[in-house]
Amino acid sequence: MNNTTTTDLFNVPSHNPSFFSVKESAVYKGPLLDFCIPVNLHFPPPQMVQRISERLPEILRYYPDYAEVHAKHIGKIAGVPSENIVPANGSTEIITRLCHLTRGPILTPIPTFSRWTDLPEELGIPLHTVKADVERNFRLDVEEVVSRVEELAVKMLVISNPNNPTGAWFEAGEIEELVLRLPQVERIVIDESFLDFSDLESAVALIPKAQNLVVVKSLGKSLGWHGVRLGYAATNSQAAHLFRSQLPFWNVNGLAAYILKSVSEFKDEFLQSLALVKQDRIYMLTQLERIPGLKVFPSQANFLYVELPSNVPGRKLRDRLLKKYGLIVRECSNKIGSSERYLRLAVQTREAIDLLIEALSRELS
Amino acid sequence: MNNTTTTDLFNVPSHNPSFFSVKESAVYKGPLLDFCIPVNLHFPPPQMVQRISERLPEILRYYPDYAEVHAKHIGKIAGVPSENIVPANGSTEIITRLCHLTRGPILTPIPTFSRWTDLPEELGIPLHTVKADVERNFRLDVEEVVSRVEELAVKMLVISNPNNPTGAWFEAGEIEELVLRLPQVERIVIDESFLDFSDLESAVALIPKAQNLVVVKSLGKSLGWHGVRLGYAATNSQAAHLFRSQLPFWNVNGLAAYILKSVSEFKDEFLQSLALVKQDRIYMLTQLERIPGLKVFPSQANFLYVELPSNVPGRKLRDRLLKKYGLIVRECSNKIGSSERYLRLAVQTREAIDLLIEALSRELS
Repeated sequence: MNNTTTTDLFNVPSHNPSFFSVKESAVYKGPLLDFCIPVNLHFPPPQMVQRISERLPEILRYYPDYAEVHAKHIGKIAGVPSENIVPANGSTEIITRLCHLTRGPILTPIPTFSRWTDLPEELGIPLHTVKADVERNFRLDVEEVVSRVEELAVKMLVISNPNNPTGAWFEAGEIEELVLRLPQVERIVIDESFLDFSDLESAVALIPKAQNLVVVKSLGKSLGWHGVRLGYAATNSQAAHLFRSQLPFWNVNGLAAYILKSVSEFKDEFLQSLALVKQDRIYMLTQLERIPGLKVFPSQANFLYVELPSNVPGRKLRDRLLKKYGLIVRECSNKIGSSERYLRLAVQTREAIDLLIEALSRELS
Repeated sequence: MNNTTTTDLFNVPSHNPSFFSVKESAVYKGPLLDFCIPVNLHFPPPQMVQRISERLPEILRYYPDYAEVHAKHIGKIAGVPSENIVPANGSTEIITRLCHLTRGPILTPIPTFSRWTDLPEELGIPLHTVKADVERNFRLDVEEVVSRVEELAVKMLVISNPNNPTGAWFEAGEIEELVLRLPQVERIVIDESFLDFSDLESAVALIPKAQNLVVVKSLGKSLGWHGVRLGYAATNSQAAHLFRSQLPFWNVNGLAAYILKSVSEFKDEFLQSLALVKQDRIYMLTQLERIPGLKVFPSQANFLYVELPSNVPGRKLRDRLLKKYGLIVRECSNKIGSSERYLRLAVQTREAIDLLIEALSRELS
């Protein structure tokens, strides 16, 4: 990282630089606090970490299990028969394959997770968008989505619920209406990667009613370890079978497999951790709302979408927060449908939130 | 695993059942010894394991680095510029993608790693084979391969060097001749997943001379942790770029990334571990050769291919070894071009080898 400044690192087409590369090039010499990457900070519990640490060689020596074993465990977590499950090396493996399989226009509300907009572009697939409206707190209208799908002869509709980065959502009834009104679409993808942090219901219950429904989910975010790479798709059993055959054998690594196998023993701690994240989100929202000029939007995820005063350049603010306070934040200029006027702030611990509030108050006053 | 017997587990189309599923269903109540999965048992060293164990939460909390970072580290290990490297979630991710990209006949010597024969079949791609000859210790003739490629208008030629399961090999000069005589083939793949255990030279030196050359390598086997999932392809920079765009972002998990970053600090231990595996192989070969009726073939890999006496059914022997002695061995009836008359025995520690020799001597006498 010799000749790279931290600012250069952030000038990437869509995603964040990795935490490790920011850390290596940072000017700020204290510990860095990350508000960029939305991950459950209250999981895994220390006993689970200790057990994994002690058993690492045993866990990693041999080939991991096959997809059927993972599907069984994921099925239990998702409340779906295992034949409906496609285990994956993170939800991004599913997203990549879904885009490669699609022959025809894709429609997605924006802003959204950048892989859903970048991949169609890279693959030359027509991408249509529905822009979420700030006046409605970025909540979308079922009617509008349905009519856009019909008008554009869309092959794949992608909805993130709750949305990343806005935190806005569809209620279960709205998703049901959307799915049942669009049987002609080849695939309706509901990306529920942040659903565990919400009070929303999963769309998996609709799988028996809709052959074209694919629910996509990251598990790394919920389980607190992004780097472990674990995700899945849930869809009708025939599509799941076909889809599994598209993915490499042993795509889920041994450590992810072990976590999957043993997480049921830590179910109470897991549910407790999600409840804590919700409490932290409420605390963070309340504190942010006190800063004059800052607009904070309602969110069902483990991050908050924030609008800066019109005279504050987001990129410069981001650089100052990193340099002066060691706080890493995500400004959204490289997200289609957003701009540097918006920050996506991952929910952190209370101590970290207090430091952010102090820094923001100072920088915005 | 309630209603499954261990024998059922082995009745799979091509690969082994996982170690974990065998362990769960085993009748033998002592510790199991694995001769099935060829992995470096002398690496990682205890200091490396300890460091990883201590830093797990830090390593896994955030998204792993991007492909460019991994490519830099792999490039150093492979002695190739990073622009030529495609980092992967195990070599199987590369193999899967290569087969999906191929439009036309594939030729491979058999027996070989089953993914190379199963995937073309699953994808409906014509697969042609050259059968390695027991009379020549399974070593192949360059002339024969070249003439088969020409005759069949092959699009992708796949050579594993050294071969899995036979341990037979091509010398560097033979690989060079093969590659340079076949510029018309779309892709020549040299799978070097077991090369680290041999005295052979890698074909990567030929990349500047051959646009169609793709060297594929697993790193998990060499680094001693199969379950971590790490591999790569090395090819010309344009093909590497295209290939990377076919794979998911963050396909290399955080733990694999950390090992990649830190393995250079354990270079001496790594080279030492490979030397130990070679010594163990020689010991194992010498001991196996003493058992009457058993034929052991020369091998450059970390396993030995063994022919049983014609009156010994391999499957029954495998089941007896597991039930009575807790020894897991691989018989090759589910490998195209082999049969249950052959075992592939992964090189184990000396203590384990002695137990195997004792058990085999007893069962074959």
